[in-house]
Amino acid sequence: MQQALLLADEAARVGEVPVGAVVLDGQGRVLSMARNHVEEYHDASAHAELLAMRQAAHRCGTVRLEDCTLVVTLEPCPMCAAAVTHFRLQRVIYGAYDPKGGAVDHGPRLFARSSCLHRPEEIISGVREREAAAQLRHFFRGLRHRRD
Amino acid sequence: MQQALLLADEAARVGEVPVGAVVLDGQGRVLSMARNHVEEYHDASAHAELLAMRQAAHRCGTVRLEDCTLVVTLEPCPMCAAAVTHFRLQRVIYGAYDPKGGAVDHGPRLFARSSCLHRPEEIISGVREREAAAQLRHFFRGLRHRRD
Repeated sequence: MQQALLLADEAARVGEVPVGAVVLDGQGRVLSMARNHVEEYHDASAHAELLAMRQAAHRCGTVRLEDCTLVVTLEPCPMCAAAVTHFRLQRVIYGAYDPKGGAVDHGPRLFARSSCLHRPEEIISGVREREAAAQLRHFFRGLRHRRD
Repeated sequence: MQQALLLADEAARVGEVPVGAVVLDGQGRVLSMARNHVEEYHDASAHAELLAMRQAAHRCGTVRLEDCTLVVTLEPCPMCAAAVTHFRLQRVIYGAYDPKGGAVDHGPRLFARSSCLHRPEEIISGVREREAAAQLRHFFRGLRHRRD
């Protein structure tokens, strides 16, 4: 999570929403790291965790990340939570809760649905939540100030 | 939809789940076309519609496809439906219904949720549904035969 928080901080410095993500293999080795790239890539799907999962799968030469863990600073949105299902990750660890946009413990709660084809064996929520939430609060407060 | 069906057919011929997608601009001009590339790219997120939206945004140099239409042969899954929200498309037209994996008219029905930050103004479901569904049925029947 420390690495993911540093990536989120890097995102904020270039004007991207501060979210960072890391994918670890079954032995806890880092397979990929990414931060938000939505504005730079002109790609609304370039969320940190989706980029990290894509990179990890590309590196492993497989579509399935079956023994892997996603660590991300913010509760995944429906797009990224559904991608966790498609990539079949074993574990998700996230930082800040997202009552408005999250889809793990809020909103559609995708993994809890009977229609979910693959849910992670383990989900750990709220890890270093205060730091992750503070990054986001600070970023959006700065945006509002620039707008006023 | 004709073009999307042809792309889906192309996908099936190379062993990908037959789904094709096209993004049109506000004047009805084609901005991007894509088919499933999950196996070839080792990318479980390489669904036709997500690829098409990413390409269209890249081509337009913007994150938002605000006056655009997504045409896709299969009801979008939660990942792709949420991406429609992130890319802010105006209209979604899809072919076959997907009661198990769909997220527009089935499952989490993402656009109908109060938490949805952007829902398309218009959703047209079931366009050339029989052809699109037949492509998928034929593909999965073939897979089962090869497995038996």
